[in-house]
Amino acid sequence: MIRLGMIGGGQGAFIGGVHRLAAALDGQYDLVAGAFSSNPGTSKASGQLLGLSAERVYGSYQELIEREKQLPESERVQVVSIVTPNHLHFAPAKLALENGFHVILDKPMTFSLAEAKELQAVVEASSCHFCLTHTYTGYPMVKEARQLVASGELGTIRKVYVEYPQGWLSAFEEGTANKQAAWRTDPTKSGLAGAMGDIGTHAFNLLEYVSGLAVTQLCADINTVVPGRKLDDDGAVLLRLSGGASGVLTATQVAAGEENNLRLRIYGEKGGLEWQQADANTLQVKWLDRPTEIRRAGTGYVGSFARHNTRTPAGHPEGYLEAFANLYRNFALTLQAELAGETASPEALDYPGIADGVRGMAFIENVIASGRSDRKWTDFTV
Amino acid sequence: MIRLGMIGGGQGAFIGGVHRLAAALDGQYDLVAGAFSSNPGTSKASGQLLGLSAERVYGSYQELIEREKQLPESERVQVVSIVTPNHLHFAPAKLALENGFHVILDKPMTFSLAEAKELQAVVEASSCHFCLTHTYTGYPMVKEARQLVASGELGTIRKVYVEYPQGWLSAFEEGTANKQAAWRTDPTKSGLAGAMGDIGTHAFNLLEYVSGLAVTQLCADINTVVPGRKLDDDGAVLLRLSGGASGVLTATQVAAGEENNLRLRIYGEKGGLEWQQADANTLQVKWLDRPTEIRRAGTGYVGSFARHNTRTPAGHPEGYLEAFANLYRNFALTLQAELAGETASPEALDYPGIADGVRGMAFIENVIASGRSDRKWTDFTV
Amino acid sequence: MIRLGMIGGGQGAFIGGVHRLAAALDGQYDLVAGAFSSNPGTSKASGQLLGLSAERVYGSYQELIEREKQLPESERVQVVSIVTPNHLHFAPAKLALENGFHVILDKPMTFSLAEAKELQAVVEASSCHFCLTHTYTGYPMVKEARQLVASGELGTIRKVYVEYPQGWLSAFEEGTANKQAAWRTDPTKSGLAGAMGDIGTHAFNLLEYVSGLAVTQLCADINTVVPGRKLDDDGAVLLRLSGGASGVLTATQVAAGEENNLRLRIYGEKGGLEWQQADANTLQVKWLDRPTEIRRAGTGYVGSFARHNTRTPAGHPEGYLEAFANLYRNFALTLQAELAGETASPEALDYPGIADGVRGMAFIENVIASGRSDRKWTDFTV
Amino acid sequence: MIRLGMIGGGQGAFIGGVHRLAAALDGQYDLVAGAFSSNPGTSKASGQLLGLSAERVYGSYQELIEREKQLPESERVQVVSIVTPNHLHFAPAKLALENGFHVILDKPMTFSLAEAKELQAVVEASSCHFCLTHTYTGYPMVKEARQLVASGELGTIRKVYVEYPQGWLSAFEEGTANKQAAWRTDPTKSGLAGAMGDIGTHAFNLLEYVSGLAVTQLCADINTVVPGRKLDDDGAVLLRLSGGASGVLTATQVAAGEENNLRLRIYGEKGGLEWQQADANTLQVKWLDRPTEIRRAGTGYVGSFARHNTRTPAGHPEGYLEAFANLYRNFALTLQAELAGETASPEALDYPGIADGVRGMAFIENVIASGRSDRKWTDFTV
Repeated sequence: MIRLGMIGGGQGAFIGGVHRLAAALDGQYDLVAGAFSSNPGTSKASGQLLGLSAERVYGSYQELIEREKQLPESERVQVVSIVTPNHLHFAPAKLALENGFHVILDKPMTFSLAEAKELQAVVEASSCHFCLTHTYTGYPMVKEARQLVASGELGTIRKVYVEYPQGWLSAFEEGTANKQAAWRTDPTKSGLAGAMGDIGTHAFNLLEYVSGLAVTQLCADINTVVPGRKLDDDGAVLLRLSGGASGVLTATQVAAGEENNLRLRIYGEKGGLEWQQADANTLQVKWLDRPTEIRRAGTGYVGSFARHNTRTPAGHPEGYLEAFANLYRNFALTLQAELAGETASPEALDYPGIADGVRGMAFIENVIASGRSDRKWTDFTV
Repeated sequence: MIRLGMIGGGQGAFIGGVHRLAAALDGQYDLVAGAFSSNPGTSKASGQLLGLSAERVYGSYQELIEREKQLPESERVQVVSIVTPNHLHFAPAKLALENGFHVILDKPMTFSLAEAKELQAVVEASSCHFCLTHTYTGYPMVKEARQLVASGELGTIRKVYVEYPQGWLSAFEEGTANKQAAWRTDPTKSGLAGAMGDIGTHAFNLLEYVSGLAVTQLCADINTVVPGRKLDDDGAVLLRLSGGASGVLTATQVAAGEENNLRLRIYGEKGGLEWQQADANTLQVKWLDRPTEIRRAGTGYVGSFARHNTRTPAGHPEGYLEAFANLYRNFALTLQAELAGETASPEALDYPGIADGVRGMAFIENVIASGRSDRKWTDFTV
Repeated sequence: MIRLGMIGGGQGAFIGGVHRLAAALDGQYDLVAGAFSSNPGTSKASGQLLGLSAERVYGSYQELIEREKQLPESERVQVVSIVTPNHLHFAPAKLALENGFHVILDKPMTFSLAEAKELQAVVEASSCHFCLTHTYTGYPMVKEARQLVASGELGTIRKVYVEYPQGWLSAFEEGTANKQAAWRTDPTKSGLAGAMGDIGTHAFNLLEYVSGLAVTQLCADINTVVPGRKLDDDGAVLLRLSGGASGVLTATQVAAGEENNLRLRIYGEKGGLEWQQADANTLQVKWLDRPTEIRRAGTGYVGSFARHNTRTPAGHPEGYLEAFANLYRNFALTLQAELAGETASPEALDYPGIADGVRGMAFIENVIASGRSDRKWTDFTV
Repeated sequence: MIRLGMIGGGQGAFIGGVHRLAAALDGQYDLVAGAFSSNPGTSKASGQLLGLSAERVYGSYQELIEREKQLPESERVQVVSIVTPNHLHFAPAKLALENGFHVILDKPMTFSLAEAKELQAVVEASSCHFCLTHTYTGYPMVKEARQLVASGELGTIRKVYVEYPQGWLSAFEEGTANKQAAWRTDPTKSGLAGAMGDIGTHAFNLLEYVSGLAVTQLCADINTVVPGRKLDDDGAVLLRLSGGASGVLTATQVAAGEENNLRLRIYGEKGGLEWQQADANTLQVKWLDRPTEIRRAGTGYVGSFARHNTRTPAGHPEGYLEAFANLYRNFALTLQAELAGETASPEALDYPGIADGVRGMAFIENVIASGRSDRKWTDFTV
């Protein structure tokens, strides 16, 4: 069992609970410590509910890192999971890494691209491992999609579409009890972008991960649809990618009635693929001149990456929590391999890392810059 | 029965046959004359196969119009259906209208916007009726969608997405026996645009029809993906619309493995809708805070426009030919009402006309101009 | 053009209109005569609405046959289409055949099995052709399914499921203005069975057609669910088939909220297939150890029977009317081949005939007998 | 944390791993002891892999119960989870209950109905809680379905269909390395039934759970399709239920190409519902005269039972493991309420228990008896 400490995720938070479910599923992590809130009382109460020893529930992330470091190596936290709002990502991550703790960090990686680059330097200077929780690349059929593109069977990729429509911010929720809405639409906590940061970065990461291509230029239409909102809640982006492909990325939080309908389509010279979260265990593979294939998670014919990231045979749907748990599981397998002096498998090493985080932050800055520009194309710079 | 004459649509053509099926379905038209090809032999042979009297199969559209006009009013063609390639739309349409024949014309309406405006003047100066075959607005659940938006139930429209992916031009088909590919990719026959004219105009028309909004600005990425091709085969367009909505239109002919997957989504403050041709008898209506509704053609609860455009009860799927036939049928009902000295119903009058055609040609010119421009936004001018 | 006369199908009828649409679609038939109702006034009015010459609208089927027979061969009706309620199938069909008219007859074929066998003898003694409108076997992907089973690719068939749920008779509609409900639930018009005759026979025909197997034994649970109804409105039937397969057939008219959800699944040693009317242009082909295939109508890879029965390329959905029209079209092609002294193609000859009708009536009698029996298995006797 | 001991589930087993994932997900159980195999070496090795202390890995279930009982109450196992093949369910469950351990038991509950009734007496005589892992009733939208039926909104239930097609036993797998196939087709381990016990009982339980009705009579066609197989691998069953409803249950393991396509449909006077595992987060609710509703897990409008059994907001698909975990979670909540001297909520108490197990075993005996009988209807006796 890997000893896990958590920063953030106290009562009322959303993603902290998801991280705990993901960490628990495969029985590889033991949550032993936490600084669950900057409010010490909330932190204590949260820790108690989670069954932690009171002495390992801390009032701040600094305290957690300092105190855990003083514990014997066999007791102290090995991995710190940071699940705070965006403006509170960088400092605890840096401190943890500099003190020898491996880090799992929620996305978007930091508050700004500058922070992201600085964090990259910290990771590279450390001997620690780093995982960024871009959940959607944890789905087995997303991995199958990536393996399919990489195999060359679709031919050179020409066209990519990724879309992430949500409807939950269709009304002005900022003044309500909805804590999620409050910080995600607050530029002092969320950063430069709203929807583009919260879900646009997911779509961007998914697109680059599966296609194996890098965005090189973009042209963005960024909107704040709901009156009074301080950040963007909608955007559409034309893309140019390495290798000559082009594409479209859309992300919106005002598509009333939509849940979380992330969908990816990629087309090459000979065929295409389609994956959507609402039917996550399926990958459609389309061909120019033969029937569309319905490839399914858990079957005997999928590739090694899909297989590695599935727990049950075909016909037992796995979902969002399993995808999230795949990140935790692969990170654990990587650490365990290192502790055992072994080389982790390519499948275990396949989780999002610091480079994804830097590109994600560059996406935010570039897409917002393009949204404000009169020029059609903005070069994607990092 | 309305007496129909056809220009174009000889052996080997695609859309001519579709027009004939559409005209035949409801038993309202009698195909009595044709100039099916500019090659008189092909025209004759085609007419014979279709069972026409040899004396009413003509060698040119001019001959058809001139000779039919000399026939007694009770015998001569009443409606001319023009199903030639784009460069051969304007001249026969103009001649027919000027000689008192009603016209059904395939889309895009003309070879250029200038021709479109001239044709508009001709229509307005005549006492003839004019129908442009934007097929997709003939589907009953598209009409239901339009009626839903118009009812205001979705609130003010904020976001629109329309996409039309095809894969049939993924390879260089121009040199093959594929006649459809040949003329559609030939700038001397197709006009300024390839994919944008052939299918982009359909997507554009569908979007404006259902949303009730007008595109006011656009920003286009227009590509010729297949080497050697002379016109665009792919494009993505950011849109701004009247009333403050924004949107995305994509149309491509290089999405390998896709058939004809026209899909429309529109979101307002309170809910959204989704329709796709592959499941044409269904309209999904999504709401902020209650279950998605699956509205179905042929049921008792759909509106008057959907009901009027359906022939069978729910559960008997109607398709593309029925949608096409709805255009012919409504045009016939309009003419019959006029002949009877009655007023046609709003449902009968609801078919695409000359104004749709002018906007479609403007779309082509604006979208291609935007594709060539470095400015982000191009005003939509007519 | 083949000259068509219609018996039944006057104002207010449902299936008569469908027959006319089906006959019209491909422009092969010319409706020139009719006895649309046993009420001469209704017949006249219906004929007038359909644009027929008044002198060829008759007051009875006897009059139609007698008078048409006196017309010159080049003018008189060639095919009689009979679209009356079940109790009025046999007599006009027999009279027509005995007077040399080809017959298209709606299903179920007759009022009783005895009538069916007598009609079979009449057909065999005549030189006329006979078509029974089991619509669903007209769908191209149903034909693809049949061709797939026949190819042996699925291995020996082991298991078949066919289901036909409707909800339109969930309430007692008999006393309302619903003419369809009235006669279909009236044993003096419908015959021995309600749901089993109206839709059970369709399911049965579809099953035997695609599987190529014959039902040899059955065990039925037949219910009249709605109080006051005189015939069955629901049933489920265990089946044993030739070749050792077993299966289940269900048909119900009290599945509230269902439209017309005919669905067929067939499994062999190596794979299975699934088709449903609600997605009629798709055939799912499932395999033991490789991805499910989505085969689509209109593609280049489907077999000759599917191709022959499709009018448009893939992506242009065809539906119920096209399936119905395929029966008319193939019947026309068969007659035309005969008139031309040629042999009709296997694809043209592939429409339901007298033998299907006899088996359908046997199904009704056997299934009702089984429903009344305490024995588990009833032999399927004809 | 509840201290969990496991009996069975050693290396190579399937369902034991699923139980561990389910127990881990919500962090309510701590696996502290196990007798993972009747082979002591395998048990030890399995326990080591799972990170258990060697001294709490036992060589037999008797040893586990005896030795754990001697531990202080604050250390010893509280719940025993039994995941052995069917013939090894009864004895360890009885021994555990008689020694004061709560029991979670895999289905079907026992080897025979006689054992089931005896176990029921043991449970009732004890003060222990008992949970039977009929996974599918753990899905939130299955609970929503049950709540909908119970609300009366659909009216009196008339018709029920449940089907469970699998394809994994289409070939003779018994001689292969497939351990799952080996014991499940072995009458000395599986019991009287193969498919009917393995998946038929799931379908039966789901049907009675959601409909709130009890099967009163059945008529079964039970088949062994694959040559050489010793137990049934296919069956179809006509049902009569309390309240006058009728239905059909099918379960097969030879539907080549099917995964685990459990599907339930229930129809009342006013509407119906449809749920299928392949789209587990959706419940379709159909109405006689208004659009079908797509109800989704995680939304604000679902009932208290669905809400209680969901971890994430709408749009984050939860699957089979979450459904399984809901059983563990509700069992834990029930125990924790008891330990706290509180009353568990109706939602927490909603997990399958001993009565479900007895009815499941009765189903097996009745369905096999019916399969062997020549009489049509067999009374469902317990």
